[in-house]
Amino acid sequence: MLAEIITIGDEILIGQIVDTNSAWMAQQLNEVGLKIKQITSVSDDEDHILKALDEARERADVIFLTGGLGPTKDDITKKTLCRYFDSKLILNEEALQKVKAIFEKYKRPLLDVNIKQAEVPDNCTVLLNQYGTAPGMWFEKDNKIFISMPGVPFEMKAMMSNTVIPKLKAQVSFPAIIHETIMTAGIGESFLAKEIEEIEDALPSYIKLAYLPKLGQVRLRLSASSTNGEELRAEMLEIKSKLIAKVKQFVIATEDISMEEAILRKLTQRNQTLATAESCTGGYVAHLLTAIPGSSQAYAGGAVSYSYALKEIMLGVKEETLAQHGAVSEETVKEMAQGALDTYQTDYAIACSGIAGPGGGTPDKPVGTVWIAVASRSEMICKRFSFSDQRMQNIERTAVSAFFMLYKMMK
Amino acid sequence: MLAEIITIGDEILIGQIVDTNSAWMAQQLNEVGLKIKQITSVSDDEDHILKALDEARERADVIFLTGGLGPTKDDITKKTLCRYFDSKLILNEEALQKVKAIFEKYKRPLLDVNIKQAEVPDNCTVLLNQYGTAPGMWFEKDNKIFISMPGVPFEMKAMMSNTVIPKLKAQVSFPAIIHETIMTAGIGESFLAKEIEEIEDALPSYIKLAYLPKLGQVRLRLSASSTNGEELRAEMLEIKSKLIAKVKQFVIATEDISMEEAILRKLTQRNQTLATAESCTGGYVAHLLTAIPGSSQAYAGGAVSYSYALKEIMLGVKEETLAQHGAVSEETVKEMAQGALDTYQTDYAIACSGIAGPGGGTPDKPVGTVWIAVASRSEMICKRFSFSDQRMQNIERTAVSAFFMLYKMMK
Repeated sequence: MLAEIITIGDEILIGQIVDTNSAWMAQQLNEVGLKIKQITSVSDDEDHILKALDEARERADVIFLTGGLGPTKDDITKKTLCRYFDSKLILNEEALQKVKAIFEKYKRPLLDVNIKQAEVPDNCTVLLNQYGTAPGMWFEKDNKIFISMPGVPFEMKAMMSNTVIPKLKAQVSFPAIIHETIMTAGIGESFLAKEIEEIEDALPSYIKLAYLPKLGQVRLRLSASSTNGEELRAEMLEIKSKLIAKVKQFVIATEDISMEEAILRKLTQRNQTLATAESCTGGYVAHLLTAIPGSSQAYAGGAVSYSYALKEIMLGVKEETLAQHGAVSEETVKEMAQGALDTYQTDYAIACSGIAGPGGGTPDKPVGTVWIAVASRSEMICKRFSFSDQRMQNIERTAVSAFFMLYKMMK
Repeated sequence: MLAEIITIGDEILIGQIVDTNSAWMAQQLNEVGLKIKQITSVSDDEDHILKALDEARERADVIFLTGGLGPTKDDITKKTLCRYFDSKLILNEEALQKVKAIFEKYKRPLLDVNIKQAEVPDNCTVLLNQYGTAPGMWFEKDNKIFISMPGVPFEMKAMMSNTVIPKLKAQVSFPAIIHETIMTAGIGESFLAKEIEEIEDALPSYIKLAYLPKLGQVRLRLSASSTNGEELRAEMLEIKSKLIAKVKQFVIATEDISMEEAILRKLTQRNQTLATAESCTGGYVAHLLTAIPGSSQAYAGGAVSYSYALKEIMLGVKEETLAQHGAVSEETVKEMAQGALDTYQTDYAIACSGIAGPGGGTPDKPVGTVWIAVASRSEMICKRFSFSDQRMQNIERTAVSAFFMLYKMMK
């Protein structure tokens, strides 16, 4: 059983938005055992959408569409689906009630275009939209299922989780797709490959191994699809154990979680706390930590000490240190880490200071120069890095490197 | 002249990574006048890649591929391209030097698989990789151009900017694709549509208007493609002026920039500064600000006061206030804003405190309850919001709402 995702919208094709919906949908669908064959982004153009539908139904059994359901004139998905399935639009009373409720909640007058959003093709099953005005639509034709959902991420997500996936599960029986993930850090893709070469070469044909590199980390992912889920899982876990044993010192986690999540779990287990003192990362380290539910159990908070003054006020960095060595220096970043530990009374602290760019570089300290300090009550590690000339990349790399330093210290 | 993007990698189809490359490439290509017809994500599977290449060449003149060029066994793009273009692999001396240089820089021994990365099809033009080991490849066949690049974002970006786009410009003459964007906030998509109905209905057929909604903001984008760039631009600007005049009170910016960038520009122009005091957003507001180059001119920094203790230590929130009203309250968030203003000595401060979820909700203050305060030296505005049950959405909405409150105060 295969699925495809078609995302509709000119804004994707001119790069004005990043399509995050597809990845989320693919994750959810893989979990229930529906494999995605292809993801296609097309424009708000009737012929193009029709062509994409024809091509997708050749390859897949279930076709998901997102986008193009808004109230404005550039949204043509519903009209196009009417043509594709030879339907007429009829007003759906339940959908209309949802639209009315939303407009009442925000105390806004109901416009004709909003009422029109409650019109649906007469030969589809309506999928009510919990958070928005555009209902989803479920069509079946020639043993294929077509599901059209709004492009607004949280509306689509609620519709998928609460309506679409339960309905799919009730209607279709899925084979098991199994993934097992090992997170590594501190070793490059090709070195990792060399370390585990023998295990990889001995893999049975139905188990695939993928290397997923991402800024200083490489995820190893085993995957397979089978109707015999239990036996396959046992075999996968055995291979996974061998892989872990082989590259033990680089393993950060044995499931698909981020390094920061692994850190937070360890801290929570140990009943310990962490604070951050950020300059060049400007809150990104804190954001990665606090994006994880329950992070408040171990993460106390921290300073975004972007200016010189705030390094002194928030973290007690000495004026002389800044004057003598500058903000991007071993001395400053150590005082930042110590200041965070002392002021915020935590067990661990991360501090970073660097030149993210594009401006601010000097011959001595070019853009990409970053100092990171990680401290516990008994230990302080400090390192200088030379990253790139790209601002966001420098911010991300600093965060990953800081987490890796902390992870190693906690080990 | 049309282009297509094919992104290759199982990790995209199981949703393990979000494809951010396509949006960036689409942006760059649109700027030089190359319109993207379709974006397709396919698996690391030879037949699937070959089929995607065949389909893309039917629709487009230039086909971009990213991904599948790594040193490990699951990367099969190069092998597949060899088959598609009937080529043999030969070692490229320049590419080998690049590989060697990278391994020397990181003081790592060169493996056979790394040397193999310098092998390229004998009938392609090699695109050297500034930051990584996998060279890009440029093929031409039957008047179509095929460009294969690595999937690692910063390697691909450097290759596009420094090699691919200059080479395309030298070889092909492009029509002008023109976009004009107006950023609005505080008005829904359908209300905006109603306000500008007359202007939209009178648009000439060759100018398209799109509504791009995104969490509390709607971007209006005019676009057109023509060989007569100058005349078209004048016409577009006239329409843009009319649109701006019509919805003046909701316009945040008259170009495609984020609300936080508009705020930072205004602050910098006025020589004013901003501090943040974040609880539920956990550094996300600071991150959005500091992601913008030059933000240090106006953004001083701030507190991520996640715990009760840090609200007191960092911002001087009174213990009684927290005990009496809780962290998520008008009283606390006002003290946080005032504390940030006073302690960090800035002209403006943003403070937010709320229950991001999924845990921590109470009947009185369910998940999604957020208080935001925005303060200047002479004014304080405070508002309660009821967002959703989704953690990341609550964090993002809080940030956008805070920026909008600040923007209005600065106006």
